[in-house]
Amino acid sequence: MSGKLNVAIVGSTGYGGVELIRLLTAHPQVEVTSVISSSSAGTPIAEGYPHLTEIRTDLLDGIEAAAIRAKADVVFLATPAGIAAKLAPELLAEGLKVIDISGDFRLKSPSLYEEWYKKSPAEEAYLAQAVYGLAEVFGEEVRGVDLISNPGCYPTATLLGLVPAVKEGWIDPATIIIDAKSGVSGAGRGASLGTHYSEINENFKAYKVNKHQHIPEIEQVLTRVAGKPVVTTFTTHLVPMTRGIMSTMYATIQGEHTDQDFIDLYRRYYEGRKFVRVRQAGQWPATKEVWGSNYCDIGFAVDSRTGRLTIVSVIDNLVKGAAGQAIQNLNLMMGWDEGLGLNFVPAYP
Amino acid sequence: MSGKLNVAIVGSTGYGGVELIRLLTAHPQVEVTSVISSSSAGTPIAEGYPHLTEIRTDLLDGIEAAAIRAKADVVFLATPAGIAAKLAPELLAEGLKVIDISGDFRLKSPSLYEEWYKKSPAEEAYLAQAVYGLAEVFGEEVRGVDLISNPGCYPTATLLGLVPAVKEGWIDPATIIIDAKSGVSGAGRGASLGTHYSEINENFKAYKVNKHQHIPEIEQVLTRVAGKPVVTTFTTHLVPMTRGIMSTMYATIQGEHTDQDFIDLYRRYYEGRKFVRVRQAGQWPATKEVWGSNYCDIGFAVDSRTGRLTIVSVIDNLVKGAAGQAIQNLNLMMGWDEGLGLNFVPAYP
Amino acid sequence: MSGKLNVAIVGSTGYGGVELIRLLTAHPQVEVTSVISSSSAGTPIAEGYPHLTEIRTDLLDGIEAAAIRAKADVVFLATPAGIAAKLAPELLAEGLKVIDISGDFRLKSPSLYEEWYKKSPAEEAYLAQAVYGLAEVFGEEVRGVDLISNPGCYPTATLLGLVPAVKEGWIDPATIIIDAKSGVSGAGRGASLGTHYSEINENFKAYKVNKHQHIPEIEQVLTRVAGKPVVTTFTTHLVPMTRGIMSTMYATIQGEHTDQDFIDLYRRYYEGRKFVRVRQAGQWPATKEVWGSNYCDIGFAVDSRTGRLTIVSVIDNLVKGAAGQAIQNLNLMMGWDEGLGLNFVPAYP
Amino acid sequence: MSGKLNVAIVGSTGYGGVELIRLLTAHPQVEVTSVISSSSAGTPIAEGYPHLTEIRTDLLDGIEAAAIRAKADVVFLATPAGIAAKLAPELLAEGLKVIDISGDFRLKSPSLYEEWYKKSPAEEAYLAQAVYGLAEVFGEEVRGVDLISNPGCYPTATLLGLVPAVKEGWIDPATIIIDAKSGVSGAGRGASLGTHYSEINENFKAYKVNKHQHIPEIEQVLTRVAGKPVVTTFTTHLVPMTRGIMSTMYATIQGEHTDQDFIDLYRRYYEGRKFVRVRQAGQWPATKEVWGSNYCDIGFAVDSRTGRLTIVSVIDNLVKGAAGQAIQNLNLMMGWDEGLGLNFVPAYP
Repeated sequence: MSGKLNVAIVGSTGYGGVELIRLLTAHPQVEVTSVISSSSAGTPIAEGYPHLTEIRTDLLDGIEAAAIRAKADVVFLATPAGIAAKLAPELLAEGLKVIDISGDFRLKSPSLYEEWYKKSPAEEAYLAQAVYGLAEVFGEEVRGVDLISNPGCYPTATLLGLVPAVKEGWIDPATIIIDAKSGVSGAGRGASLGTHYSEINENFKAYKVNKHQHIPEIEQVLTRVAGKPVVTTFTTHLVPMTRGIMSTMYATIQGEHTDQDFIDLYRRYYEGRKFVRVRQAGQWPATKEVWGSNYCDIGFAVDSRTGRLTIVSVIDNLVKGAAGQAIQNLNLMMGWDEGLGLNFVPAYP
Repeated sequence: MSGKLNVAIVGSTGYGGVELIRLLTAHPQVEVTSVISSSSAGTPIAEGYPHLTEIRTDLLDGIEAAAIRAKADVVFLATPAGIAAKLAPELLAEGLKVIDISGDFRLKSPSLYEEWYKKSPAEEAYLAQAVYGLAEVFGEEVRGVDLISNPGCYPTATLLGLVPAVKEGWIDPATIIIDAKSGVSGAGRGASLGTHYSEINENFKAYKVNKHQHIPEIEQVLTRVAGKPVVTTFTTHLVPMTRGIMSTMYATIQGEHTDQDFIDLYRRYYEGRKFVRVRQAGQWPATKEVWGSNYCDIGFAVDSRTGRLTIVSVIDNLVKGAAGQAIQNLNLMMGWDEGLGLNFVPAYP
Repeated sequence: MSGKLNVAIVGSTGYGGVELIRLLTAHPQVEVTSVISSSSAGTPIAEGYPHLTEIRTDLLDGIEAAAIRAKADVVFLATPAGIAAKLAPELLAEGLKVIDISGDFRLKSPSLYEEWYKKSPAEEAYLAQAVYGLAEVFGEEVRGVDLISNPGCYPTATLLGLVPAVKEGWIDPATIIIDAKSGVSGAGRGASLGTHYSEINENFKAYKVNKHQHIPEIEQVLTRVAGKPVVTTFTTHLVPMTRGIMSTMYATIQGEHTDQDFIDLYRRYYEGRKFVRVRQAGQWPATKEVWGSNYCDIGFAVDSRTGRLTIVSVIDNLVKGAAGQAIQNLNLMMGWDEGLGLNFVPAYP
Repeated sequence: MSGKLNVAIVGSTGYGGVELIRLLTAHPQVEVTSVISSSSAGTPIAEGYPHLTEIRTDLLDGIEAAAIRAKADVVFLATPAGIAAKLAPELLAEGLKVIDISGDFRLKSPSLYEEWYKKSPAEEAYLAQAVYGLAEVFGEEVRGVDLISNPGCYPTATLLGLVPAVKEGWIDPATIIIDAKSGVSGAGRGASLGTHYSEINENFKAYKVNKHQHIPEIEQVLTRVAGKPVVTTFTTHLVPMTRGIMSTMYATIQGEHTDQDFIDLYRRYYEGRKFVRVRQAGQWPATKEVWGSNYCDIGFAVDSRTGRLTIVSVIDNLVKGAAGQAIQNLNLMMGWDEGLGLNFVPAYP
């Protein structure tokens, strides 16, 4: 514990929480001093997660701001929507720094949050304070702040794939269509018919068509980048696999640009950011090629027949789409190298 | 064999071939009198497919037109691209009727075939003779003909989902974007890195972006239906599952139409055709809901924010996308009820 | 409905229930006149199971014996353990014939039921009356009876693989070890952590080691066949797949016997019974080779080094292990051909 | 490179090879200075494995002993059976240390190798020289040697589960039956019908019953530990998943012992060895609970009804069953902490 940063994880028994534990165990500057769960406080975390046997032998703590402050300097909130809105202000008041993995601080507009999340929004002052941690786009804004809102999984894959082209004006933002696919772990550990093995295996399905709460988050960023209002068509699908997100994106090209032009543009935009890998022409990334890692891989296909660009962007939803990017944000917040503790090679096959 | 129609299957050792065997075994008017494979002639078909043990105990025959004629009246060709172009004319010359499941007779233009298939096309006279058996759209044209070209798997799911709206002018054909996903059986039984379990499992990937040979087939039909040239953006993805195709399709709506308007339009268009099931508002079909059956299920989502329509269409690629529709075409060709031998309930779960 | 047998299905919204619907829809002598569910009565069955859209448009009925009698002559009970024990006597009293797919009437001893199922047993008179429908072993006893107890999924695969050798005295019953594996559908449709996709996918696990309630059922039959008490070691494992059971069984060989000797013995024993397929020497069946069908396939390996026999037996747990064998029992009960409506070719791949 | 150990990997384009790359990239004392492949020399390794994009940008080297010596001090051989037998002596002659992951140096008897591997054995002197690196059993013998033979995947899971009980005489070695299950990655990256996705998915099958080449390896160790000849019954099954092995093992108990007795015995035996985790009573490990890590987890079930013990042992076949244990052996050979670079938390879910 000598000189390391002490961190606590609220929501340790969810998939986002255990992924934080997995990744932070390898972080050279961090010590996880408290794993917290309101529902299972007092029991060993390894009881519900036997893969942690002998790795974490401590008991789960309850949620109490002062007690957390006694153990930690930074708190990750890996909680369901609606919890962090109330909890984060209490933790900030204790002098803790907060990185929220839930959706509670992503939308600047409280009414938009209410409309899409069907829950009470956080207070506007905190929404204003929270910095949106899309690391490769807004990473500089994160340094030194107290409250970071970690982007959603779909928005991360989607925005990293779109931002440079929208910013440069090479695609028409009004024509953007996003066909997104996710593994099942994105739905969390809660048991339901929608996560039942026999219903998911050997099955592929669409869900929440045009209704997903990540739509306003994507549009908020695209609007900021484009400098004018952007609305998008966004469809989500469930893939019979555990981890991985692919966003396949379509837009009409403005001007004359080849595959290689887009590759060059993106490589310039992401220069020095190790976790975005822009693939060579003719190569589209597959989700397995980033499995277990913090990479976002991006490929392009310009179609001269239709004048449209197809962008393929993949991430591991639990890493770059949640716990990994949250740690990347911690690193940026602390002024450390953004890759600290995150240099995992994807597990293949 | 009394009074039944005798049929032969060329390419019996491929997935399309064994699916024909599975389905035709239950057909009340058909007897499969010859299962044919050039590579394995003389061996029992159950040797390579033990699930057929005691179901088919006969040996595989070789490919010889006169010998086939001696055993059968109708031949299904379930062969790789490039075979049927030469074989079908020989079989027709023997007086056999031919239903080709490959792509060799789908494109009316020989040069287009050559461009997309990278193989020598069939003779133009046969391309002109072949009737394209998209059963619910062109089914009446099939009756009594000698040469049927069975549609591709992606085109079947895609076109059944698009044709009524394009025909009615409710969507702008110039805006159509097709994001298609398929199970691995569509790639056939050949062993390759692209079908290797460890590479596919827990993986999702795009392939042949803008390059798939089913693109000109889709455009040929849409052009005919729209009455003007249509080009489309079409992306194919591989899903870690064995069977099933979903086409998620996007287009700009022309005029004012609700979900229910589209549902009503499609139900009218497909009236009396049992294998297309138009789902109720708010319900999008999943591939498992048609698994093992000849159904094509279709759902809609009108998005007033963007003015776009999202169409979700699913089939079992080996049934409605291959063997099942081929049998449906046989039924139509013979003047029988189109559902004869095809009334399988989807296997769920 | 003219001349067909009217049947009702209690528990229609479970996997066993919908599989009965799938199979009985193809049965030439049966009409399913009532689908019953206590929890969902009054709603369309296709609401929870969209794959039945336009196939079954009727509403689910409630459970009321007299109302069932008004619609049906035979009732299938596809209910959780503990329901049939009370319901079957009521239905019998109404003059209905009952085929119970649950475990409630399998064990002749009420105390054994209580010990392994942790529930109140059925009345002893009904336990005595119920005929255990392991079709290929006790099929003759089923004809004309009123109450059939359909065997469990594991016991079906296991016993069909063991009975001939035990009966003949070729293996020592005291040495039998059964290592069984099942797909997830065997756990039913209830949502739980144990059926959660992300917990099952890319995972293999043992459960209920030495504690599974199918153990006394297996031993009851082996004891009867061996003519002396038999206890067995029985382990169950969960395979990341939906359907299929394999029992791999080990026993010490008594006397000198080759693979072919066992094959011949089993082929004689199962002569005329189409649903047991004894494989040729050196071939061990895989679960996919019986997927969706009523087959039980069996293979052998004699090991001269150890003097032990390995038996591999596979079934589709929802067909031969539940709904399919129940229909086979219906056929036998009615004096029909046992394969009526069950001649499905396994769906491969 | 300052002060790090330089290692080369022969067979870098196989699954064992890329897993070595994944793990060694995180090793603090090692630098992988040469990745070698006879078939793909001269091309970038990331071409065939895009997950390594920007992680390894070097070209594959060819196999030439002197050239390897110029770059490395230690060589891992991750080659198919039959290669290392000839290659290792050449490398040793150059002064390199060799850790062989293949089966070529596991069996002390050349004739046994020939019988089970159907290939020419290594020279007897080298077979005698090679130290069998089952780390937690024979780890002390590895220190400082030049040639280590890394155990097979099945033997690792199996022997770690059996050795303490056999050594202590608590189970009768003559009664051992091993029912083993493996994910598909164990079969390597070669494309074949046996690794074809559509053949494996939703399927479970037995293979090489009583014929697997890991049988003599298991028996060689058990014979040494028991102090008398041991033969075993060993069956292998293929699970529809990529990684993971479970050995379910059965044996007759000698003496009176409870679950807890076995747990205590194993915990004593493996004291101080972090990669073996003996589970608490009533808990059997699942393969996913060690996924991606070097752990071997073991659970027990004593059955008083039959007097038999059931042991469940799981590993990740590519880590503890191959690359991970090889690195553990490197650490032991070098006199380092055995866990160096291997402290990965299992990836869950």
